[in-house]
Amino acid sequence: MRFGEKSVIQDEDRLETVNTDWMHKYRGSSKLLLQPRSTEEVAQILNYCNSRCLAVVPQGGNTGLVGGSVPVFDEVIVNVGSMNNIISFDTVSGILVCEAGCILENLISFLDNQGFIMPLDLGAKGSCQIGGNVSTNAGGLRLVRYGSLHGNVLGLEAVLANGDVLDMLGTLRKDNTGYDLKHLFIGSEGSLGIVTKVSILTPPKLSSVNIAFLACRDYSSCQKLLMEAKRKMGEILSAFEFLDIEAMDLVLNHLDGVRNPLPAPMHNFYVLIETTGSDESYDREKLEAFLLSSMEGGLISDGVLAQDINQASSFWRIREGVPEALMKAGAVYKYDLSLPVERMYDLVDDMRTRLGDSARVVGYGHLGDGNLHLNVSAPQYDDKILEQIEPYVYEWTSKHRGSISAEHGLGLMKANKIYYSKSPETVKTMGSIKKLLDPNGILNPYKVLPHSLDS
Amino acid sequence: MRFGEKSVIQDEDRLETVNTDWMHKYRGSSKLLLQPRSTEEVAQILNYCNSRCLAVVPQGGNTGLVGGSVPVFDEVIVNVGSMNNIISFDTVSGILVCEAGCILENLISFLDNQGFIMPLDLGAKGSCQIGGNVSTNAGGLRLVRYGSLHGNVLGLEAVLANGDVLDMLGTLRKDNTGYDLKHLFIGSEGSLGIVTKVSILTPPKLSSVNIAFLACRDYSSCQKLLMEAKRKMGEILSAFEFLDIEAMDLVLNHLDGVRNPLPAPMHNFYVLIETTGSDESYDREKLEAFLLSSMEGGLISDGVLAQDINQASSFWRIREGVPEALMKAGAVYKYDLSLPVERMYDLVDDMRTRLGDSARVVGYGHLGDGNLHLNVSAPQYDDKILEQIEPYVYEWTSKHRGSISAEHGLGLMKANKIYYSKSPETVKTMGSIKKLLDPNGILNPYKVLPHSLDS
Repeated sequence: MRFGEKSVIQDEDRLETVNTDWMHKYRGSSKLLLQPRSTEEVAQILNYCNSRCLAVVPQGGNTGLVGGSVPVFDEVIVNVGSMNNIISFDTVSGILVCEAGCILENLISFLDNQGFIMPLDLGAKGSCQIGGNVSTNAGGLRLVRYGSLHGNVLGLEAVLANGDVLDMLGTLRKDNTGYDLKHLFIGSEGSLGIVTKVSILTPPKLSSVNIAFLACRDYSSCQKLLMEAKRKMGEILSAFEFLDIEAMDLVLNHLDGVRNPLPAPMHNFYVLIETTGSDESYDREKLEAFLLSSMEGGLISDGVLAQDINQASSFWRIREGVPEALMKAGAVYKYDLSLPVERMYDLVDDMRTRLGDSARVVGYGHLGDGNLHLNVSAPQYDDKILEQIEPYVYEWTSKHRGSISAEHGLGLMKANKIYYSKSPETVKTMGSIKKLLDPNGILNPYKVLPHSLDS
Repeated sequence: MRFGEKSVIQDEDRLETVNTDWMHKYRGSSKLLLQPRSTEEVAQILNYCNSRCLAVVPQGGNTGLVGGSVPVFDEVIVNVGSMNNIISFDTVSGILVCEAGCILENLISFLDNQGFIMPLDLGAKGSCQIGGNVSTNAGGLRLVRYGSLHGNVLGLEAVLANGDVLDMLGTLRKDNTGYDLKHLFIGSEGSLGIVTKVSILTPPKLSSVNIAFLACRDYSSCQKLLMEAKRKMGEILSAFEFLDIEAMDLVLNHLDGVRNPLPAPMHNFYVLIETTGSDESYDREKLEAFLLSSMEGGLISDGVLAQDINQASSFWRIREGVPEALMKAGAVYKYDLSLPVERMYDLVDDMRTRLGDSARVVGYGHLGDGNLHLNVSAPQYDDKILEQIEPYVYEWTSKHRGSISAEHGLGLMKANKIYYSKSPETVKTMGSIKKLLDPNGILNPYKVLPHSLDS
């Protein structure tokens, strides 16, 4: 590809790329968007930019929440969306090989026809791309069952800053020959190389899905219920989500057509459990037996099992509707934290004490993964509220050895906050690896690593 | 710790460390074995050795098969076996944190009392250590169910060559804050740092285990059976192992007390399927229904379901007895290969054609993971036979994008064979990362990476 050809778009109006985060905070003014159609073109672009020290922003579906895929100044955008071919699928092993620009939902549809599923599923599946998913180590709804992309990605191809192509596109479940370098590119947000192809292990589609919506008296019961669910249904458990009374109240008051599946009064906590297995009757009986014993043991105060797909969707609508309800309720401060499960909700309680009547504190998320979405809702944005929240929330998380970004990444927004979750020696080593693989610092500058490392 | 104290053993007779591989091929003559009792001591040792350019061999249980944990010349051995404390266990999340020297079997026993299991299990569990397991990315019998250590290890602490301690000992399932550097230390065989502590996600122990021993007419039926098993019992499948008629014949003829659970005549292939779930009756019914439909569909020629734990053990004894039977049968050339499942057995057929009557070619292994243990059995070791096997077997594997070391690592034995499975650009990048993290090359020299990189 030569510059100036079809794949280079020079209409400046189209280049002011804005990402879809909650505050529309990130807006660059790149003058050049490149859409390579092959690995070789990506290699040529990077080789050219590297030799001239031109900064580059790798971009997939641009659905990230921390400004990782948006130019900060006038970086060249390299969008891999045109590289969207499925290269191969092995129906015996379930191994899919495809280009980085494949949209997640398209892969899900393709696999559905083959009787398989993707090991990850996200709200943004309609526009996010697999290369971006891998580059940000996207989490999502199926992690509790299938684990992270570090376990599911079997291989990848990446182009380094200097244009060298690393072919690590293995399709093997086991390969202990040398350092497993692909992991460097999983979750490094395009700052070490551009992922161009991915090989991923996909699980077979199982036919039987059951969903229960439950109420618990306190957080301790939610925790015990999680332990019991893992023990008694570990092999079929595919989601264990929770929301607190504040989240439930917001959903019921702000979303049209949503009703509480459980009769009044309101409970302090609600839990959504999903099971996925191969046999409808056995799996349902297993879930029913589990619910019965949990009810008898006092872990559940009330609960209902979805009778059909519509009711199942209505349960998911409650859990997935929390962010939308928060948006409608006013200003919202959002935090995506990993914490040890047993201490997770203490932060919500502490934050309530701290903020008093000035704001509502809402806790919900992927309890099965120890991932809390902490949200603070207020009538309008107010620096005084923000000062009450930050850096307190980061310090609290750090003190309990949590992660200040469970699944969203650091991007531009949190690059300088990395020390809350990583030790200075570890960050220093990250910096030296960045310097090794991208000595001119052209790949996604100002992102992921703290600015202090540059000096 | 000061040198010369208790933790330094200077009895030279004890230092001629021999590993337990099949040919007792690797034997160094180290004059110094150090047994640090803490991370700080490991850091002091490495800092001292690095400043004086003294080479070091990190060592765990010393059970590897490729000479990775044995000194080649007079390297200082740093054995972490005295660092064997369990630091914490969280019964809600199942997250175990322990020191690197913990013996795998001791961890298994500890977890058993808590109602959990380790996500990996190996024949060498009685002496191998978790630090060594992580450093070699050990595979084993449970990988088909729980995946690799890249997915299960949540964090680790490692000491770099210069003595810097990297604290990456997170206990979180999700943490997207910067590069996930722990993966560099998983499977790099102690050549980038010494793993001193490990945090690992352990699954709950499930009560119901069922085992079936089956016969198939041809390899194609084994493959189809695997596909069906994943689809119909994916959530409870915990092992899918196979052995061919040659392996079965060796076991029956060389191991005392082993008998064929299926009536004569012999079949071309045998498959062992294990399921693990939470409910005895449901799981057994699921397996029985699967076996019935597979029998009706012609995928299975014959089969038997273990009626009790003794019969279950006798089935495992057949599969696990293959290496011992091979040893008793004479000389044996062993290869641990990953290959695309659909082509895997073609190599066994090709090798038979190639070797003719000069040797017996035996194929068995973890079919569910695409991991073939190819063994050639001959009356005695013979260079002519070896010349027929190598480099043919490596070239064949390379041509089909397989791995020449699925789970054993490269160590000393295969360091120079890395290019059969990894591209030159990738190996070059491995070399630059080695140089970055261990500029004096003190950590496990002559291992993992090819000698050509040193020049």
